[in-house]
Amino acid sequence: MTVDRNDTRWNGWGWSHAADELSGNDQVWEWMARELGMGALLATPPVPLEDIILPPSRLPTDVLNGLAEVAGEAWVKVSQFERASHARGKSYHDLLYLRAGDLRDAMPDAVVYPGNPLETLEVIQRCADRNIAVVPTGGGSSVVGGVTAATGDTHDAVIVLDTTRMNRVLTIDEEAMTAVVEAGVYGPDLEEQLNAKGFTLGHFPQSFEFSTLGGWIAARGAGQQSNKYGKAEAWLVCAKLATPKGFWTTECFPASAAGPDLNDLVLGSEGTIGVITEATVKIQRVPEAKDYRGYLFNDFASGVAAAREIVQSRVPVAMVRLSDENETHFFRAFSDAQKPASFMRDLKKKFEAWYLKTKGVSEKPCVMIIGVEGTKAATESARKTAEAIAKKHKALPIGTSAGKRWYEGRFHGPYARDPMLDHGLGVDTLETATRWSNMLHLHGAMTPAIETAIRETLPNEGAHGIVMGHLSHSYTDGASLYYTFAFPRDLEAEVPQWRAIKKAATETIVEHGGTISHHHGVGTDHADWMVEEKGPIGVSILKAVKDELDEAGIMNPGKLVR
Amino acid sequence: MTVDRNDTRWNGWGWSHAADELSGNDQVWEWMARELGMGALLATPPVPLEDIILPPSRLPTDVLNGLAEVAGEAWVKVSQFERASHARGKSYHDLLYLRAGDLRDAMPDAVVYPGNPLETLEVIQRCADRNIAVVPTGGGSSVVGGVTAATGDTHDAVIVLDTTRMNRVLTIDEEAMTAVVEAGVYGPDLEEQLNAKGFTLGHFPQSFEFSTLGGWIAARGAGQQSNKYGKAEAWLVCAKLATPKGFWTTECFPASAAGPDLNDLVLGSEGTIGVITEATVKIQRVPEAKDYRGYLFNDFASGVAAAREIVQSRVPVAMVRLSDENETHFFRAFSDAQKPASFMRDLKKKFEAWYLKTKGVSEKPCVMIIGVEGTKAATESARKTAEAIAKKHKALPIGTSAGKRWYEGRFHGPYARDPMLDHGLGVDTLETATRWSNMLHLHGAMTPAIETAIRETLPNEGAHGIVMGHLSHSYTDGASLYYTFAFPRDLEAEVPQWRAIKKAATETIVEHGGTISHHHGVGTDHADWMVEEKGPIGVSILKAVKDELDEAGIMNPGKLVR
Repeated sequence: MTVDRNDTRWNGWGWSHAADELSGNDQVWEWMARELGMGALLATPPVPLEDIILPPSRLPTDVLNGLAEVAGEAWVKVSQFERASHARGKSYHDLLYLRAGDLRDAMPDAVVYPGNPLETLEVIQRCADRNIAVVPTGGGSSVVGGVTAATGDTHDAVIVLDTTRMNRVLTIDEEAMTAVVEAGVYGPDLEEQLNAKGFTLGHFPQSFEFSTLGGWIAARGAGQQSNKYGKAEAWLVCAKLATPKGFWTTECFPASAAGPDLNDLVLGSEGTIGVITEATVKIQRVPEAKDYRGYLFNDFASGVAAAREIVQSRVPVAMVRLSDENETHFFRAFSDAQKPASFMRDLKKKFEAWYLKTKGVSEKPCVMIIGVEGTKAATESARKTAEAIAKKHKALPIGTSAGKRWYEGRFHGPYARDPMLDHGLGVDTLETATRWSNMLHLHGAMTPAIETAIRETLPNEGAHGIVMGHLSHSYTDGASLYYTFAFPRDLEAEVPQWRAIKKAATETIVEHGGTISHHHGVGTDHADWMVEEKGPIGVSILKAVKDELDEAGIMNPGKLVR
Repeated sequence: MTVDRNDTRWNGWGWSHAADELSGNDQVWEWMARELGMGALLATPPVPLEDIILPPSRLPTDVLNGLAEVAGEAWVKVSQFERASHARGKSYHDLLYLRAGDLRDAMPDAVVYPGNPLETLEVIQRCADRNIAVVPTGGGSSVVGGVTAATGDTHDAVIVLDTTRMNRVLTIDEEAMTAVVEAGVYGPDLEEQLNAKGFTLGHFPQSFEFSTLGGWIAARGAGQQSNKYGKAEAWLVCAKLATPKGFWTTECFPASAAGPDLNDLVLGSEGTIGVITEATVKIQRVPEAKDYRGYLFNDFASGVAAAREIVQSRVPVAMVRLSDENETHFFRAFSDAQKPASFMRDLKKKFEAWYLKTKGVSEKPCVMIIGVEGTKAATESARKTAEAIAKKHKALPIGTSAGKRWYEGRFHGPYARDPMLDHGLGVDTLETATRWSNMLHLHGAMTPAIETAIRETLPNEGAHGIVMGHLSHSYTDGASLYYTFAFPRDLEAEVPQWRAIKKAATETIVEHGGTISHHHGVGTDHADWMVEEKGPIGVSILKAVKDELDEAGIMNPGKLVR
């Protein structure tokens, strides 16, 4: 099952005709208004696509015809929907522009869908010859401005190169447990093809339904179960890229000492040196069993200590996800707000509070979800070991229902954003990673920094933001921290408001020893901090590599390094 | 305990005054002659250092004085011993040149030992200003020509920059389980400093006693227990380099999506872009228990299948090392040849043969050593699981004595080479890695290719070589293969003989889907095959990176890429 973009929301998340239970649930919005210190929420619907006048395509007819010769006429698209839906990714501020119908700064002059690597190469080379920028995209779900079809004044036009026609699993090597896969395949389609042979890639980011293999590699992404299946750099064996200089097939060995591993230049390249058309990836057996369950910790620090011990003891867990006090509270309250109030629910809550108190768990607990996947025996053994460590750190096991709820809702996050945007609210996420010894220092700085930045950019007196964090994706030397924050939108200055908050958060990350991104990538949004991240020499190396492969500078300009 | 080069063999392996039990054991050499189809072995002693006339240093006095200003007068050395012992690494053909006293093609004009990163940077920059090549070295144990102080006609002089004064563990982060270490530290010194705090890096290559942390990173090396502790790319977190462009401190996070991970350009850089002066590395607890034991498989294929199942089942072993039929036979026979013959020994051998037969093990078995390290409980559990898999593949457990023997002799290999060279013999090793599904195909081609090449280059009719292989360093998608081969030397054409064998072996690797090196590196010896390994675009990227950091081309010229 692949994704037909025509059935998806051009200016939001998900299928266009999917039911949205959240939007009409007044109780939720009343609760949300209270949480944000607002009297009421506004109605802020987006501008419909048909009301927007797009600038005309600047592609010269001969170029358009040439591209049609390469990819086939049906696969060079210039319709309003195709251009608008490929104009930007799916970040919060992308949606601000799209919903406002403001498509001046980013609009592809055409969308080209090559059907194979050779067509991809030819599209790139034709564009290189004519100073036309090429923005490669898969699902287009970047939340860091990684696929913005910005024109600037450096290029004569810009096309989006959509890879999603290239969506087959080509071969599976059952002995080496690797698969060669076309990079434009969407998550569900990839898993369906692999599952049919008993295998899985196991890469399930929140964007899973609407993102592609090539995007995961290009952004150096992570799936939610990266403790077991690995971040993209762990499962990529090698790749084939179409670059302005020709095809580049990277070295493809289990390990090598033949100089630097250049696959690491592909991972995180974000379309700036070429288009990933195929990848060889490590696959695993579809797990026989999955076990996700919850634990309540007295505070974030004891949860962090447990997570660290689990991963440093090499317990083979699939996921350890620790919500901070705010996130634990919010998820609980949000879940409650979606259901009608009742005497019985009140009674249940009171009983739960009493139970937590007698068990010695604080009133502001932190929930951890531990997931294990694998054979039944290995799963049971890993769960027990992880649970023993959690208990050592005074956690209260709360059973599988919390795990089940998390698992069922694991792709739901982005769906809540559109209704929030409809109600005058803003919501964004960002993430980082740091070493264990710096975790509480960084986390301690992040929440206040984001809260302060929100307060300073709020339109209404008395209102405030919600900032919540969690730890996930853990390694022996550290882990990632992820933040979600919601706030009343300043409708007069939506983008500057977002930019101010983003700047405060990123500067706090940089000053407190975190990476500017653990799995979202750089795109345009983090590019300003790349010198802090990589050092001036690091950035000069990235530029030298780009210059070597993309002399004309047509590949995804403005992303990654400036 | 650090290594004083003055106490080591300038033209061989190990301490200069160490006892050598092998050389005087006539029984061994008689046996060796028989194994190689030779009537008798020759005596081919090396030329003593005092008989060699070195070319005079070409370093202008002002440069020499300048380097002394930077590093201190005592640390700019031009003695016969310092220059000769830093002329080349420790490859077989390095030794051919050194033992022949032929130092024309490679001879540093001085050896400089900077005491800290800043001095390192200044040495590099002074050399860059004067077109003087800089060959960085740690222990100098490269077996691929990685530290040859070749002059060529492109540079006015060449210095060797010896990093071994920089040998301290600077900090240990017990929470993140990382250490910041000066890169010139020798293996035993590093482990001693870490062990004192209860930690280990766990990187034990065969060269451990005489190689350094920086060298392991620069060569992308692997320790024998890499299944547990990881190859250099698994344990390196970040590094500090002195480059001609200035200091480069790489990004230092547990994981990141902020573009490509540039640490991967440091790993395997072989001194061609700068000198690694410091590294942050992942450390582990000193294992509570170690268990090494042997298993006999009926053939190589069933051993490979067991190794694959062990690693793909994620059994946390430290090492799985499978000798092929030849290596199993040779090790056994070599061990026997070192002891005096006796009636009892003959009887024991006959009994063993009978026992193997009744147990259904073939007469040409393959020995596997499985090593596990960790807590007592984890070690016992991993050993049992691995053993069950081995037995499933019809292996006969032969207990801990074989494991103990392997463990005790794990650094001995290189010591046997000098006595062999003294007896007119040549011996070399090479290694590769490939995916599991290609393992038997590649291994099946390697032994005959090396045997044939030896036969074609032999001086004496009727003689032949010994070629033996083993599998080690396994990954879910594949493993490394390692070959040791011994042969009667063609004293009239020693280097061409070696080159012909090397070429045949490497071409076989390339043609059969292996990497040109799994952990030895590229140096000068594999540089000719880098285009096959990385593709023309890959090589052009490596060159672009070098040009960016080393515009003057002074850093370790001729290595890695040409």
